Amino acid sequence: MDPMARIEEALEAALVTAEAEGCPPTLAQALRYGVFPGGARIRPRLCLAVAWACGDDNPALADAAAASIELLHCASLIHDDLPCFDDAPIRRGKPTVHKVYGENAAVLAGDALIVLAFETLARGAAGSPERLAKLLPIVSSAVGSPHGIIAGQAWECEPHVELTAYHRAKTGALFAAATVAGAAAAGHDAEPWRALGERLGEAYQVADDLRDVAADAEEIGKPAGRDAELGRPSAARELGVTGAIQRFDALVAAAVDSIPACPRVNELRGLISLEGKRFLPKSLALRAA
Amino acid sequence: MDPMARIEEALEAALVTAEAEGCPPTLAQALRYGVFPGGARIRPRLCLAVAWACGDDNPALADAAAASIELLHCASLIHDDLPCFDDAPIRRGKPTVHKVYGENAAVLAGDALIVLAFETLARGAAGSPERLAKLLPIVSSAVGSPHGIIAGQAWECEPHVELTAYHRAKTGALFAAATVAGAAAAGHDAEPWRALGERLGEAYQVADDLRDVAADAEEIGKPAGRDAELGRPSAARELGVTGAIQRFDALVAAAVDSIPACPRVNELRGLISLEGKRFLPKSLALRAA
Repeated sequence: MDPMARIEEALEAALVTAEAEGCPPTLAQALRYGVFPGGARIRPRLCLAVAWACGDDNPALADAAAASIELLHCASLIHDDLPCFDDAPIRRGKPTVHKVYGENAAVLAGDALIVLAFETLARGAAGSPERLAKLLPIVSSAVGSPHGIIAGQAWECEPHVELTAYHRAKTGALFAAATVAGAAAAGHDAEPWRALGERLGEAYQVADDLRDVAADAEEIGKPAGRDAELGRPSAARELGVTGAIQRFDALVAAAVDSIPACPRVNELRGLISLEGKRFLPKSLALRAA
Repeated sequence: MDPMARIEEALEAALVTAEAEGCPPTLAQALRYGVFPGGARIRPRLCLAVAWACGDDNPALADAAAASIELLHCASLIHDDLPCFDDAPIRRGKPTVHKVYGENAAVLAGDALIVLAFETLARGAAGSPERLAKLLPIVSSAVGSPHGIIAGQAWECEPHVELTAYHRAKTGALFAAATVAGAAAAGHDAEPWRALGERLGEAYQVADDLRDVAADAEEIGKPAGRDAELGRPSAARELGVTGAIQRFDALVAAAVDSIPACPRVNELRGLISLEGKRFLPKSLALRAA
């Protein structure tokens, strides 16, 4: 089955359990609204790609790992959009969860998606307790404190930010979990896969900086990019557009080079080279090597 | 070791991992503030009591299960106190987490404690993957949707509340998880232990209603109890104080009767009868049978 179809199916199966009979109706709606329709599903696709390269001997478990990572990502978006953080009105082209269902339902929907991620992992690993014991610390440490995405978001509440720790936790941790969990789900030695996720997380961050600048340059009449507005560090502003694209290319190349030995190493190398390009805004992708 | 000491030690060990180097300082402080000093630690004590009655052959795992349940309880208190829910200024005799560290840090502290609960379980079960595979669904379903404490809290956002579902999810679910997880941590058949947790959860709810009314009656000059103020259902107001105490006694007796066969069944019966009384406000405990 196509990876995107597997991901949507696994997310659907997870949501169905959460919104089952007995679920308060507003919570059920908020949960579904926060997960569907998705964005590019980059992290779960990365997880499945690694599991596939490693032989994918337990597809149900790989699907569960991929879905759990995407559910945690969706939860973080819902909470990051809250009035006490970004107060964002729009996400994935529609009003944010708290704008539609209220702040209280948004807090609970995020909470419930975090828990659903772990339930999904447990369900997918029902017949593979040894692999569950490996996956649970991988996934939970990528989300929690001190090095996961929640800690990353918490750096935004500090007067003095440690930038490397911030980016690594806010973006890198879940990318790294995607590759490491993909390998663990397929029964491979997982830690050697961390570098691939970390490099891709960094590349994604640079592409995100470029998107911010590109929107600024191309869409005349709109306010300056959010990064500049919020005083956030930006590779595109530090290195210039061309320099940032070079940095992006170098990171994707390093990611490809880091791929450990596995049954489909060449196929995965090709896939990562190709897919990496899709991180970039369309107008810049052609300029990349 | 004394159960209370075991619980505090397990919570301390969990917190130390979360606030390790790299953790944003405000998040680290908010996490610790939300967990220490604790309340009565009723749920983890119940978990350890059941594990003990079942032989407690894996105390590290029982400690981890108890700590994970308490961390989830602490997370729910932090989020329930937020301005978009109860907007509570005081909890356990001190200002609430959002009053001290801000709403953003309180949202993240709750999120991080949820994740820490699952990390703690994973760490405690490092050598027992088969038991982890049983514990993870027990704990996660008690917290998530549709029947866990998050769903229970979500009923408070609905215009029409299903009262039985509300109480079962908001209070009963985590009590039931405490008894079921205690048995599972000790390697016993876990589901037969659900009735004990459910009955004690109901008894706790009645005691809570009585506390609300007792404070109203005894502390003259203070505003009426919160339950009446918020139009919440209350056993004490429905049945009267004497009727509610009778109901409480019947629930504790039913809890004791439900205890399944286990190595220390008589000791546990005695303990539950005695400890149950401690749910009641002191002024009413003497009136209970």
